[in-house]
Amino acid sequence: MAFKPLQDRVLVRRVEGEEKTKGGLIIPDSAKEKPAEGEVVSVGEGARKDNGELIAPGIKAGDRVLFGKWSGTEVQIDGEDLLIMKEGDILGIIA
Amino acid sequence: MAFKPLQDRVLVRRVEGEEKTKGGLIIPDSAKEKPAEGEVVSVGEGARKDNGELIAPGIKAGDRVLFGKWSGTEVQIDGEDLLIMKEGDILGIIA
Amino acid sequence: MAFKPLQDRVLVRRVEGEEKTKGGLIIPDSAKEKPAEGEVVSVGEGARKDNGELIAPGIKAGDRVLFGKWSGTEVQIDGEDLLIMKEGDILGIIA
Amino acid sequence: MAFKPLQDRVLVRRVEGEEKTKGGLIIPDSAKEKPAEGEVVSVGEGARKDNGELIAPGIKAGDRVLFGKWSGTEVQIDGEDLLIMKEGDILGIIA
Amino acid sequence: MAFKPLQDRVLVRRVEGEEKTKGGLIIPDSAKEKPAEGEVVSVGEGARKDNGELIAPGIKAGDRVLFGKWSGTEVQIDGEDLLIMKEGDILGIIA
Amino acid sequence: MAFKPLQDRVLVRRVEGEEKTKGGLIIPDSAKEKPAEGEVVSVGEGARKDNGELIAPGIKAGDRVLFGKWSGTEVQIDGEDLLIMKEGDILGIIA
Amino acid sequence: MAFKPLQDRVLVRRVEGEEKTKGGLIIPDSAKEKPAEGEVVSVGEGARKDNGELIAPGIKAGDRVLFGKWSGTEVQIDGEDLLIMKEGDILGIIA
Repeated sequence: MAFKPLQDRVLVRRVEGEEKTKGGLIIPDSAKEKPAEGEVVSVGEGARKDNGELIAPGIKAGDRVLFGKWSGTEVQIDGEDLLIMKEGDILGIIA
Repeated sequence: MAFKPLQDRVLVRRVEGEEKTKGGLIIPDSAKEKPAEGEVVSVGEGARKDNGELIAPGIKAGDRVLFGKWSGTEVQIDGEDLLIMKEGDILGIIA
Repeated sequence: MAFKPLQDRVLVRRVEGEEKTKGGLIIPDSAKEKPAEGEVVSVGEGARKDNGELIAPGIKAGDRVLFGKWSGTEVQIDGEDLLIMKEGDILGIIA
Repeated sequence: MAFKPLQDRVLVRRVEGEEKTKGGLIIPDSAKEKPAEGEVVSVGEGARKDNGELIAPGIKAGDRVLFGKWSGTEVQIDGEDLLIMKEGDILGIIA
Repeated sequence: MAFKPLQDRVLVRRVEGEEKTKGGLIIPDSAKEKPAEGEVVSVGEGARKDNGELIAPGIKAGDRVLFGKWSGTEVQIDGEDLLIMKEGDILGIIA
Repeated sequence: MAFKPLQDRVLVRRVEGEEKTKGGLIIPDSAKEKPAEGEVVSVGEGARKDNGELIAPGIKAGDRVLFGKWSGTEVQIDGEDLLIMKEGDILGIIA
Repeated sequence: MAFKPLQDRVLVRRVEGEEKTKGGLIIPDSAKEKPAEGEVVSVGEGARKDNGELIAPGIKAGDRVLFGKWSGTEVQIDGEDLLIMKEGDILGIIA
């Protein structure tokens, strides 16, 4: 079963703390407003310009990203907890 | 009797929990802000660009969709409870 | 005496519950936020695009429509109670 | 002494209840949010489009109009109480 | 010493009640929200359109104007109390 | 050491009351919302139009200006207290 | 490990008080709303114009900047505390 986000929404799999050794990123649990790390599962077509044309999303499936800790809406797809959020909630890509 | 939503509104039939075995999507009842699943019944012409042209809707009648649990306005058409909502309230399409 | 709504306003005659057998639409009185049914009496020229051109209204006099229960401003024209509302308050057309 | 409203403002003379027999329009005093009836005294050049061009006003001096009961700012010109309001506060024209 | 307002701002000299006999305009002191009368001292270049071009102001130095009683910021230039306000705070011109 | 404001920001040196005899401008201390006088130290490139082009600032380094008393953010550059504010906070130029 | 900010976001390394002798900039700790000094680590592609084109950022990696003391979101990358903020939160460049 697949889920296709609409417009400028993206589907993100949250990556927990045990991932921190891999990329060297550490996000202390105690920090209330610190961003969370995740992996992009799928991406919508993108937002629309004023003239109606699509803006290609700046991220793609597979990207490792940081996003605001409270961003997005939780969904369960095929038994897995995922997040639907706006592309604008993604702070940046961990390369 | 048919109902034609105006502009970027869509008419959606809510799909209850017993549908979850079909697509594998599970939405726990306990979650307050989790999205709901539904089926698109009919779709308006679409929103308008700044220059007045129509933007073709990204969903069509028959699509299985997720939408915010509190989105839309309830109506009863031919004895059936349906929801009128904005296309922007649709989070994505379950394929 | 005629009344010509300005811009994207429409003049609507509210249709009460006894109309429900005709079209099959039932709107329970108990529902607080359910839409109301009405008939379009007259329609303004339409809203304006950013470049100042008119957008032709998507409804016309005679259309049976649903609108938000609390939409519009009440007026009495030739002794009849009518509602002036924005075209955007119209949810859709009952065909 | 003349008064020229700026931009999309209009100068309106309120028409009281005793006018109701003429046009058949009745506005009960008891209704708090019902619109008021008036006569347009003078009209500004109109609002401006995004590109700076003027939008010709949809009303002209002499038009009988309905406007929101609390719209506008009261002024006294040559001893007469008048109202300055935005063209967008005018609900429609009584023809 | 001269003062040049920026953008769509105007410099206005408030005209008190004793001026009322000249133009026939009477503004009762008791009215809280009634507009005030003034004379335009100097005018900025004007606001800018979306495309960056200037919109020529609709008023000029010397114009007698009405403005909202609480509009503007008081300044003292060469010992005289004046008001800096936006052109949009000017309701209209007394001709 | 130089400081270059970004976009439509300007760097302003506040000019105190003892300057008033020079230009004839008097700003009473008792007035809470009266504007303050200052000298422009440096100016950003300017704001951007909708199409992305720069709008040349209407003020330049050296201009004597009035600005809202509470406008801007205080900084200390080379031991001197200065203010960073938006060009739109500048009310006008004292010529 | 690298981090690429999206859109008009920038990654900034906060520079503490002991840096003040170098550039001559002093920011008293007692001042609540005074801006902070930092060094730009990396910059996103930039914001988008209405027509969808990118606006090249006005700052680049290595720039010494001032930003609002409470701007941005803290992240830890390779054990270092950094800030992700919008380019618009940058007040200016220290040259």
